[in-house]
Amino acid sequence: MSGSSIGKLFCVTTFGESHGPAIGCVVDGCPPGMALCAEDIQAQLDRRKPGTSRHVTQRRESDTVEILSGLFEGHTTGAPIALLIRNEDQRSKDYGNIADTFRPGHADYTYWHKYGIRDYRGGGRSSARLTAPLVGAGAIAKKWLAQKYGIRVRGHMSALGPIDLAFKSWEAVSENAFFSPDPDSVAALEAYMDELRKSGDSAGAKITVVAENVPAGWGEPLYDRIDADLAHALMGLNAVKGVEIGDGFASARQKGTEHRDELTPQGFLSNHAGGVLGGISSGQNIVAHIAIKPTSSIRLPGRSIDKQGNPIEVVTHGRHDPCVGIRATPIAEALMAIVLMDHALRHRAQCADVVMETPQIAGNVEQE
Amino acid sequence: MSGSSIGKLFCVTTFGESHGPAIGCVVDGCPPGMALCAEDIQAQLDRRKPGTSRHVTQRRESDTVEILSGLFEGHTTGAPIALLIRNEDQRSKDYGNIADTFRPGHADYTYWHKYGIRDYRGGGRSSARLTAPLVGAGAIAKKWLAQKYGIRVRGHMSALGPIDLAFKSWEAVSENAFFSPDPDSVAALEAYMDELRKSGDSAGAKITVVAENVPAGWGEPLYDRIDADLAHALMGLNAVKGVEIGDGFASARQKGTEHRDELTPQGFLSNHAGGVLGGISSGQNIVAHIAIKPTSSIRLPGRSIDKQGNPIEVVTHGRHDPCVGIRATPIAEALMAIVLMDHALRHRAQCADVVMETPQIAGNVEQE
Amino acid sequence: MSGSSIGKLFCVTTFGESHGPAIGCVVDGCPPGMALCAEDIQAQLDRRKPGTSRHVTQRRESDTVEILSGLFEGHTTGAPIALLIRNEDQRSKDYGNIADTFRPGHADYTYWHKYGIRDYRGGGRSSARLTAPLVGAGAIAKKWLAQKYGIRVRGHMSALGPIDLAFKSWEAVSENAFFSPDPDSVAALEAYMDELRKSGDSAGAKITVVAENVPAGWGEPLYDRIDADLAHALMGLNAVKGVEIGDGFASARQKGTEHRDELTPQGFLSNHAGGVLGGISSGQNIVAHIAIKPTSSIRLPGRSIDKQGNPIEVVTHGRHDPCVGIRATPIAEALMAIVLMDHALRHRAQCADVVMETPQIAGNVEQE
Amino acid sequence: MSGSSIGKLFCVTTFGESHGPAIGCVVDGCPPGMALCAEDIQAQLDRRKPGTSRHVTQRRESDTVEILSGLFEGHTTGAPIALLIRNEDQRSKDYGNIADTFRPGHADYTYWHKYGIRDYRGGGRSSARLTAPLVGAGAIAKKWLAQKYGIRVRGHMSALGPIDLAFKSWEAVSENAFFSPDPDSVAALEAYMDELRKSGDSAGAKITVVAENVPAGWGEPLYDRIDADLAHALMGLNAVKGVEIGDGFASARQKGTEHRDELTPQGFLSNHAGGVLGGISSGQNIVAHIAIKPTSSIRLPGRSIDKQGNPIEVVTHGRHDPCVGIRATPIAEALMAIVLMDHALRHRAQCADVVMETPQIAGNVEQE
Repeated sequence: MSGSSIGKLFCVTTFGESHGPAIGCVVDGCPPGMALCAEDIQAQLDRRKPGTSRHVTQRRESDTVEILSGLFEGHTTGAPIALLIRNEDQRSKDYGNIADTFRPGHADYTYWHKYGIRDYRGGGRSSARLTAPLVGAGAIAKKWLAQKYGIRVRGHMSALGPIDLAFKSWEAVSENAFFSPDPDSVAALEAYMDELRKSGDSAGAKITVVAENVPAGWGEPLYDRIDADLAHALMGLNAVKGVEIGDGFASARQKGTEHRDELTPQGFLSNHAGGVLGGISSGQNIVAHIAIKPTSSIRLPGRSIDKQGNPIEVVTHGRHDPCVGIRATPIAEALMAIVLMDHALRHRAQCADVVMETPQIAGNVEQE
Repeated sequence: MSGSSIGKLFCVTTFGESHGPAIGCVVDGCPPGMALCAEDIQAQLDRRKPGTSRHVTQRRESDTVEILSGLFEGHTTGAPIALLIRNEDQRSKDYGNIADTFRPGHADYTYWHKYGIRDYRGGGRSSARLTAPLVGAGAIAKKWLAQKYGIRVRGHMSALGPIDLAFKSWEAVSENAFFSPDPDSVAALEAYMDELRKSGDSAGAKITVVAENVPAGWGEPLYDRIDADLAHALMGLNAVKGVEIGDGFASARQKGTEHRDELTPQGFLSNHAGGVLGGISSGQNIVAHIAIKPTSSIRLPGRSIDKQGNPIEVVTHGRHDPCVGIRATPIAEALMAIVLMDHALRHRAQCADVVMETPQIAGNVEQE
Repeated sequence: MSGSSIGKLFCVTTFGESHGPAIGCVVDGCPPGMALCAEDIQAQLDRRKPGTSRHVTQRRESDTVEILSGLFEGHTTGAPIALLIRNEDQRSKDYGNIADTFRPGHADYTYWHKYGIRDYRGGGRSSARLTAPLVGAGAIAKKWLAQKYGIRVRGHMSALGPIDLAFKSWEAVSENAFFSPDPDSVAALEAYMDELRKSGDSAGAKITVVAENVPAGWGEPLYDRIDADLAHALMGLNAVKGVEIGDGFASARQKGTEHRDELTPQGFLSNHAGGVLGGISSGQNIVAHIAIKPTSSIRLPGRSIDKQGNPIEVVTHGRHDPCVGIRATPIAEALMAIVLMDHALRHRAQCADVVMETPQIAGNVEQE
Repeated sequence: MSGSSIGKLFCVTTFGESHGPAIGCVVDGCPPGMALCAEDIQAQLDRRKPGTSRHVTQRRESDTVEILSGLFEGHTTGAPIALLIRNEDQRSKDYGNIADTFRPGHADYTYWHKYGIRDYRGGGRSSARLTAPLVGAGAIAKKWLAQKYGIRVRGHMSALGPIDLAFKSWEAVSENAFFSPDPDSVAALEAYMDELRKSGDSAGAKITVVAENVPAGWGEPLYDRIDADLAHALMGLNAVKGVEIGDGFASARQKGTEHRDELTPQGFLSNHAGGVLGGISSGQNIVAHIAIKPTSSIRLPGRSIDKQGNPIEVVTHGRHDPCVGIRATPIAEALMAIVLMDHALRHRAQCADVVMETPQIAGNVEQE
């Protein structure tokens, strides 16, 4: 176990630092016999990689993945799959001036108090760069879930700072740099980001992830519930401060008659639950939302202290995302895929023999 | 591992069903030498137990705990501590009429699809009754955290249905049946609940939990972060649909300059982060909020299906909480205490040698 | 996790002390739908319980098991199964005289240095009494393995002190108090034990356990191999000092041509490997041997120290097994069954899709 | 978890195949602040690497290690340490002729039945080559144990085929290719191996590992005992068929008066227990022995079957160790070090507060 792994039967262990020689992960537990090649993984990595628009960090990383193990003749063997991504564009000297100070809102203060070691180069292990290996592992999970169960895991941005994004279509998501599902929102998003960048400040965002075609019955009731494990994975992502399943915090204001999703032979009549009841998948779409805080590394000065405890003023240079939420959609998808694949395997272990006569009803029908 | 345990070094495994002979848990990993007796645990169980006001289920359970192991001459020995609570007031026949049907919004549909077994008696293992052993385990964690680190874990209701509750004082919390921190809110809460009960409907709620005096430096950066593990524990609680740390979803609308908590030699100037930065405790109060959905077992009829897939109308009798949030405060406290104790032990394992010259600043100072 | 559990997907967590109120365990991960009742478990417990012959401890314990959870209408539900056994015949005062001293060869010295707590009553948690819950858990595993795969796990004594026991038949094993597979050995065993008891000394023993009908392909190559997990489980049993798979230590003196088990279409021609190759089951009988040391609690005086470090002479009274190996056979069977069931579930998780065209050859054919 | 990790708090996950691009591991849980460089690790890898004498496989691998993460300015940071070793000298075509057949005594039969995938190139993941990353991880553990506790983990060969090796000195061990502790044995060992190689057969061996200066009190009583975890680790090593702690199987023939290690204020008078009592370290040397079977890949023909189940005759070419035991000593040392470091961390977690007034007596005194 230790702390750097996620998943129990489909288990991903990442390694690396922002400015070390390489980052990567070991993916343990992928069943044998699935066709897999570097391109399958690269395609997902490219959706996350930096430098793809003016709205994200300008660090130049190709994020080229090498598969070191676990394949034979183009198929998984059941052995651990190791992924390696070399770091290419470190500029560690950019960080020399903050080596002895703490950025307000940044993990450098807490890492220092935990480890007594300060890897100031680009955030060390707390860098968002460490999400790349997760996206690689998620690509494996996505492919397996799709082939075995027809499951599709997709995400989109649902708010950027003050701008709420209406869901219009999945097609729209891949056609803009923000993963916005509303093509009409893009101009406003670009204007907002240009203004933000100019001001030197940063912004938060909200992301939504959806898994379709998850069969009913996955998840342990207590405590490795599918919603609890999603919350663990998603809250474990850098900068996330909130996780909702289905209606989330709105549920607290609903009555039972509003919240409950009625069932008919044709399907559920609504999906307030977000596809999870009692910690177990219901067969409806699994829907999660996350809140991402604004980046703490900003150019506007803030009060802080140095390692000796003296008051100082901090300004962060280096290359940073003014809104880490912009690149968070593929990462959130990867995390949901990893959790689902883990539960798929666990379900097979314990419930392989369950033969169900009751028909599984459709995920959703039009509200009558 | 399997799915019924929570925590890695301080590990709680629960067992039991609502209408089986008993419920309980095994608490593994409590250090030796702490004074402990049944009364320590009973005091917390009594805060959660049913039947204490007209606003909660009228099931009569004394929830008397027996400590089966792990003690010698009134002190923990380091061996597993087993807690046993006998079920006393089952009325399984109340549930006969729903044995072949599924309640909209209830876990009975998903359990059925997972296991092919329907324990219809009071919800079986999905019953909120299974939170009692957690509260017992949490009592042990609370005592240890208080003695070793002076940590105090407390919670309160922050909203019930449409009624928001202002934080006025911790003293108020224990003086009403709702764990409301606002004494002036109690009349409105009682009126709301009386009306709700009469209507046959149910309501959601929001709970806040706070841990004071947690040292800076606890938590694994990736992925067993202290915020991720809190999210896992709290989202794993029955009926929870959302978890926030600190400002939570509000962070998504903040700018970096608003969200970041500035540091001064006297302490942090704010606590938007909720005491966690990069997954590691900052020394500030750890603050979490949860959203609890309205109970699905209500007297108002709803559309559903039976085990054969035929359309039916469901009405739930039996004894149920019209708002499970009312009794959720001590449970949320217990979960936070369990997570914190687990991380305390993990921190000792890995970072016992870290000697920190940098002073840990105060959790919070008055905003200037 | 913590340290008191065994198994990952079929996970057994025990609790209790020799002279506490009760002992028991939680069995997590048993698939739903298997018929199970207390008698299934009691039958195995009765094979292990004390007081059944003059050759074992005379402590009177009925070891009556109560199933607290995990069943509904006589079948497993998939929820944790908790087993409870009340202690009935403690005579803690017998141990008062050793409360401040350490028995040579006994765990009381190491427990004291680990925990700083001395539960001197009957060995506390280090008592062989704690194997009873394992036997209970093993009964569940045995039943499941038999029903799902036709697997049979059986054991016998293979040596007691200087007396080697030839394998003559499985029938013989249940017809004597020693689990000896040689009916002709019983008189010698009884004479040896009577003499030993009179002398006040204790003796070691060797036990063999065999699992038949385990399919080829169970076990993780590195490091949760089926042989490694068996070694972990069996070496974890009180008083065990050695574990062998198949030919064990004799392999070190063999040549490759002697050791390797040749394959023919009719089956393997020998079983030096003990049914495990590369950590994975081969379809042959899985065979393990364990060495059990002589009991340290004996009436013959020995040199030791007290808690202050002063030299003393120790003599142990109280009721003890002069050879714990006599009751060890059902326990070793239980441990093998637990490990096999865990691997059965793990195999289903990862390799459920493997469709094998190659025929699995017979476990063994007569040597030509 | 999944199956490719060893250790809970000091957790090593390996990856790679004999003929893939690279092998390596992720070492999670090493405390921060320890000086570490590639040379520390390389020194241990060089003790294990192939091609160092005519008695081992002639495959030419430099086994050069690259540290990919977890270091900053020459010290561990607390983050995962990833080690990478590129494979350099594959001759996969040597194995083409066995791609459709199974070597008697080899894991290729069981891997095939587990995964339905046959990586015939040099044994794939079952190759002894996969022990190199373990030796790398062990180097980290050894250094930490030495610095923190003065613990020294050393091993030696104790038998090769029929030749028993007397322990004469630790100095001797590093002065011959066999890790023999008896300088006078070397000529006989060389003659035996030359003869064996000529014959085309293979031989088994016995290895002994010893840890000095382990404090009393490490290990969980049930079931993560220090002896059980050693048995798990050592039996998990390729080709190991037996594990003993202390007197091991000889204990089965001893009486209590012979086996028990008496205590005096000056120290223990013997060490039959091998440094472990009740699963917990006693402060004496921890002593383990392992039996290694003869290599199955030999040039002498044997009966077997092909993938279709037809009878065939197998002869193995390729480059193989005629006795894998010759290179096993550094690997066994590494495994013992990994287990001890894991338990050191676990002990700190749970028992950091135990203040012991009783003096810990010396590991051993001269028998009076």
